Amino acid sequence: MKRVSHPILSALTKSCLAGSGCPQRTANDVDKALGHASLCGIDSHGYRLLPHYCRAIEGGRIDAKAITEVNQLMPSIVEVDANNGLGHHAMYAAVDALRGPVLRNGLGCALVINSSHFGPAGAYALYGAENGFLALVTCNSDAFVPLFSGQTAFHGTNPIAFAAPTSGPNPYLFDMATSAVPINRVLSAREKKEQLPPDVALDAAGESTRNSFDALTVAPLGADYGFKGAGLAGIAEVLSAILTGMGTSDQLLPMTDCEDWSTPRGLGQFLLMLRPDCRLSDNLFGNELNSYLKRLRNSPAKANGQVMAPGDREWATKKERLENGIPVPDTLVESFYDLANKFNLKTGF
Amino acid sequence: MKRVSHPILSALTKSCLAGSGCPQRTANDVDKALGHASLCGIDSHGYRLLPHYCRAIEGGRIDAKAITEVNQLMPSIVEVDANNGLGHHAMYAAVDALRGPVLRNGLGCALVINSSHFGPAGAYALYGAENGFLALVTCNSDAFVPLFSGQTAFHGTNPIAFAAPTSGPNPYLFDMATSAVPINRVLSAREKKEQLPPDVALDAAGESTRNSFDALTVAPLGADYGFKGAGLAGIAEVLSAILTGMGTSDQLLPMTDCEDWSTPRGLGQFLLMLRPDCRLSDNLFGNELNSYLKRLRNSPAKANGQVMAPGDREWATKKERLENGIPVPDTLVESFYDLANKFNLKTGF
Repeated sequence: MKRVSHPILSALTKSCLAGSGCPQRTANDVDKALGHASLCGIDSHGYRLLPHYCRAIEGGRIDAKAITEVNQLMPSIVEVDANNGLGHHAMYAAVDALRGPVLRNGLGCALVINSSHFGPAGAYALYGAENGFLALVTCNSDAFVPLFSGQTAFHGTNPIAFAAPTSGPNPYLFDMATSAVPINRVLSAREKKEQLPPDVALDAAGESTRNSFDALTVAPLGADYGFKGAGLAGIAEVLSAILTGMGTSDQLLPMTDCEDWSTPRGLGQFLLMLRPDCRLSDNLFGNELNSYLKRLRNSPAKANGQVMAPGDREWATKKERLENGIPVPDTLVESFYDLANKFNLKTGF
Repeated sequence: MKRVSHPILSALTKSCLAGSGCPQRTANDVDKALGHASLCGIDSHGYRLLPHYCRAIEGGRIDAKAITEVNQLMPSIVEVDANNGLGHHAMYAAVDALRGPVLRNGLGCALVINSSHFGPAGAYALYGAENGFLALVTCNSDAFVPLFSGQTAFHGTNPIAFAAPTSGPNPYLFDMATSAVPINRVLSAREKKEQLPPDVALDAAGESTRNSFDALTVAPLGADYGFKGAGLAGIAEVLSAILTGMGTSDQLLPMTDCEDWSTPRGLGQFLLMLRPDCRLSDNLFGNELNSYLKRLRNSPAKANGQVMAPGDREWATKKERLENGIPVPDTLVESFYDLANKFNLKTGF
């Protein structure tokens, strides 16, 4: 494992994407989203995805040069057609496109169509909050999660992310998968030959297993109350796939573990934004949210526990990684060397 | 335990509310919401709450005669001032008030202010779907749920409910608390002298306990991943309390177990509605949602398991209870007799 500085990983990412044919704005958007994840400790959705995106562009699944088109469907609803380009670019464009309708009407939503894997959902909710709005982002993904009492995968790990501006130094930021754990938690337990925690992963029969090699799927959030995680994943399907006319998780082509790297996957994504000052005047929303977060952080912790507000862990990790660099596992270092070779670049590490 | 038919409980409810001073429309709204819960098996939020509401009206906390006022804050946002009346009435009024803005703009939200406990969140999401819209409802409530790693209660059981119209016989309907279990699950375990399931209830130190008499609070959804349940509860706080300018759960006066039955609790509630045909034409949304639900129900179940769609259990329970009556525990039968006595009514059972 190496620690590599954010500017060096960012430069490599933008150069590899440019080498893959991305216009500068698109490359910047992908780098911004992956950089957010890698800095904040969401390693599964950070720079480790760069080799994947380059491969999907090379195969033709993703059109690096795609121009995102915005169509106003109704006064408060915009359609953002990614035209099979990179989902990151489409999502940042969706936030930008929603600004006007939300300022005029108080809230609005963007239906992102013909999109591709967009990395960390929280990056776009955060961008909404940085623009001064409450923002909720959800999407589906290929099936890894059985239904409650189900045997085989049906939903994706379908994230829900939410952010809002505060009068404090950082926005409110919450980004969760509706599965108990990410599928990467299983892969990581296999690598480390560790047992899995109880009730997070399921075997071929759909039964809970702690053996990572028997685990084929991950459970919906909630264990014995997994109908809740499955239902939350269902909200993501309805908003991001059915409302948009895109594919539900059970219909999507797989993201990895596949032969087909040329067919666009046609993902749908959903973004909701609201004005914080629709009822409270001036900056009162941000002040009130900040007061609530102060009370939350002061709520007594159990023994050896620590109470944190949504985003606190992420901002702390970001501070540490901006100082000491982003951890890059050896296998990923090798992948980056391969990419640098391919595009005739120096990695700088 | 008695089984009492829905029409008899409904008539008693409306008469008691009329006796408490409610205008007919208000009494009908409360009855409709409680009837939904009691028929669908959500007993904690059904007719058992009638004596509570009558007491809160008698104490002055709730104004039975309150007139709900609707103010259009922005083209897609309405404020619904419950004026310290019954939350059920305000929520149905909110759905009605949002129809116009949502038809015009594609989506809209209602901020319900100065409200009171509204019973089952799903009743209003369902009414939105019955009106042809996707609807999401959330609210907070007095604190019963510690934060993740927290020792003492901070959030309410803050529900999230979501419904949407389908081309099938029933709407899509999902209604969950963001806690692992409702607080009533603990009370019921005490009554039955049963052990609690693991990881759902917490003792005075904030540690997980299976002893219902040691349990003081319920855990956020997700057990070891309880930051997810706590984060979902946080979304409910931001939308229903902070955006509306009402109190967060940690600030609310208690609903029960209190001396004060006269001070209005000032609850905030949040309703979002969207047009299903904002991108898909005609009835395509309902058809696509129905196809997805068919695939969902056909997804293989694990051994001795059954896969169900959101709402399936509720509709099945409703069918059975419409035939055989709603179960009323003995203590509740006594409360109903007392109410009937007070208002000079015949219970009919």
